[in-house]
Amino acid sequence: MRRPIITLTTDFGLQDHFVGVMKGVILSIAPEAQLVDITHDISPQQIAEAAFTIAEAYRWFPKKTVHVVVVDPGVGTQRRPILVEGGGHRFVGPDNGVFSMVMERETCSVREITAQRFFLKPLSQTFHGRDVFSPVAAHLAKGVTPSQFGKKIADALRSEFAKLHRVGKRSWTANVLKVDRFGNLITGFAVQDFPQLGQCVFELQAGMERISLLVHSYAEAPPNEAVLIAGSAGYYEVVVNCGSAAKKLGLAAGSPLELTIW
Amino acid sequence: MRRPIITLTTDFGLQDHFVGVMKGVILSIAPEAQLVDITHDISPQQIAEAAFTIAEAYRWFPKKTVHVVVVDPGVGTQRRPILVEGGGHRFVGPDNGVFSMVMERETCSVREITAQRFFLKPLSQTFHGRDVFSPVAAHLAKGVTPSQFGKKIADALRSEFAKLHRVGKRSWTANVLKVDRFGNLITGFAVQDFPQLGQCVFELQAGMERISLLVHSYAEAPPNEAVLIAGSAGYYEVVVNCGSAAKKLGLAAGSPLELTIW
Amino acid sequence: MRRPIITLTTDFGLQDHFVGVMKGVILSIAPEAQLVDITHDISPQQIAEAAFTIAEAYRWFPKKTVHVVVVDPGVGTQRRPILVEGGGHRFVGPDNGVFSMVMERETCSVREITAQRFFLKPLSQTFHGRDVFSPVAAHLAKGVTPSQFGKKIADALRSEFAKLHRVGKRSWTANVLKVDRFGNLITGFAVQDFPQLGQCVFELQAGMERISLLVHSYAEAPPNEAVLIAGSAGYYEVVVNCGSAAKKLGLAAGSPLELTIW
Repeated sequence: MRRPIITLTTDFGLQDHFVGVMKGVILSIAPEAQLVDITHDISPQQIAEAAFTIAEAYRWFPKKTVHVVVVDPGVGTQRRPILVEGGGHRFVGPDNGVFSMVMERETCSVREITAQRFFLKPLSQTFHGRDVFSPVAAHLAKGVTPSQFGKKIADALRSEFAKLHRVGKRSWTANVLKVDRFGNLITGFAVQDFPQLGQCVFELQAGMERISLLVHSYAEAPPNEAVLIAGSAGYYEVVVNCGSAAKKLGLAAGSPLELTIW
Repeated sequence: MRRPIITLTTDFGLQDHFVGVMKGVILSIAPEAQLVDITHDISPQQIAEAAFTIAEAYRWFPKKTVHVVVVDPGVGTQRRPILVEGGGHRFVGPDNGVFSMVMERETCSVREITAQRFFLKPLSQTFHGRDVFSPVAAHLAKGVTPSQFGKKIADALRSEFAKLHRVGKRSWTANVLKVDRFGNLITGFAVQDFPQLGQCVFELQAGMERISLLVHSYAEAPPNEAVLIAGSAGYYEVVVNCGSAAKKLGLAAGSPLELTIW
Repeated sequence: MRRPIITLTTDFGLQDHFVGVMKGVILSIAPEAQLVDITHDISPQQIAEAAFTIAEAYRWFPKKTVHVVVVDPGVGTQRRPILVEGGGHRFVGPDNGVFSMVMERETCSVREITAQRFFLKPLSQTFHGRDVFSPVAAHLAKGVTPSQFGKKIADALRSEFAKLHRVGKRSWTANVLKVDRFGNLITGFAVQDFPQLGQCVFELQAGMERISLLVHSYAEAPPNEAVLIAGSAGYYEVVVNCGSAAKKLGLAAGSPLELTIW
């Protein structure tokens, strides 16, 4: 029998006891769980970054995996805890938009988690990662069915992070979804939406630069020049071979981009 | 049958081979062990920080968990390796005060680890995390009984990190136990020692600020104002909503605080 | 039956989805695998650092462990993926020198990985950690034999990172192999090559400092003075007690050193 997998994505960092505590809570309930960290270095309270990260990560895991996401600036307020089912995966976290990009990819059903019998007591006002989301994920992994946690809702918060807009006959705007560790800028232009870039003339306005070269590997890029590449996440990325595109262009997550195709 | 859990808390960081090596040693002896990182980012050689972290983390794990703590500026000197039993948990690390805050919470018995047959050979002078603490933890997890590692001692080092002192009829001093990733200041004032703060007038002197507002969630705090909250670790914390209290107040771990209650 | 162990060493950092994705791919193929992170904080594209790290880590794991190393500036070019067998361990990664220091320690056989049926499709040009190395490692861990992945090759890239050279009757040069988290400088002078340092007069020229004191533990070192110690990795290290030798001496990985012995 397979061990159930639980993934963790938070903005807790790794220097404190928070992540270890969540794992202790999960293993106390579901000792057979296989725990996998996606990342705990989401920038503090940056929901868009978490939304992108979990949307990139979940689909590489086996079906039935439980994905916990805790980036939760509204902890302790009336924001709801939710359980999302989609694509054969289960997601647990706050109703603050953090699963928006998963919902764009999959047809999802969403439940408000109201069954307090699965929460730790006393319930803190500041650490629902420990008191709500970890125990719910552990019980899910043990086989408690989603319907036991609460009723379906239709108004879960969905934020539009990718913001792809057509602004002219040949022009679209989007923004930088994420800057990765290498300084690559992951743009909101999905490869499947613009599959023709390799066969046409294009220009991407990114900060003060106009990029018109698409390469197939980092090594193809001329030294110190920003170019476009079809990234592994399915979006075009602005990269600088052996350098940081983010630094060279002075851009960050959220920065606007405009693509024109002839 | 449950897989035995071994947690790791060190100041080794994650960029070197040290942590991976410890895990290799453990899995070579106890391949069935479930390894959980609490943190490896304890500030180098900061015993107080490690003492706080393990004391917050251990109690969320199942009983019988083995907790390894290696923050060990005295490695290679005569400081003793110890095995602490308390609260149903087992702890392995240097006798330098690192388990002081566990000992405050639990009635503990302490053994000096002298059974060199459980150590790796040759024994290095600089990496007892690999040569002493990892193999001892692995053998413990496999079922070797504590008494086989050495005799009980009564003089294990206990440091007083919380330093709560009454300094007047209505005043107490303590210090900042830890600054977490969000810049929250975890104070030495335990909620259970001052349960009345929500029902009385109080003032916490913290750096140049006098704090007299207690909130129930981060969102309740007025923007950019330092307030007090009952933190998830059981201590009052000084927090700034969506900001860093440590930066705003210019305080760090160890900084003095004074609480007055009317 | 033992769970197969797969270790991961990359320069992907921990803030992105990359490492989580690799683990998802591995667990989808080999759900019984035990995953262990060596480090994901190799400096971006620093092959020498990765070569040192995996050479220090692998030998503490049980035989049959599969070690994945992805520090891969040439991803998407013609550089070959390879499978290295040596010392009872298996290694998977790019043919760019990353296993050079393992090959110095062990008699190794090397295969080019050509069996594309084990790769994910479509194969990206930028993330072979996901599409090539993770699935190959997972299939290896599941019992696919090395010969099924491709033919033996004799021309795998071996870089000479340690660079120990005799430059006089009593003098040798080497370089700094790595700076660890504590600022200790791990030198290319192996303890087994210079076992007599404790019994003779020596001088190590390191930056502007001449070091002539060898200590047995950090605590023996005079305050704020750079001294030599026989490090846990088997190399002499330049250390400063409770300080950073790298900062004090202004040296980094690759910096030249000269040792003279009388």
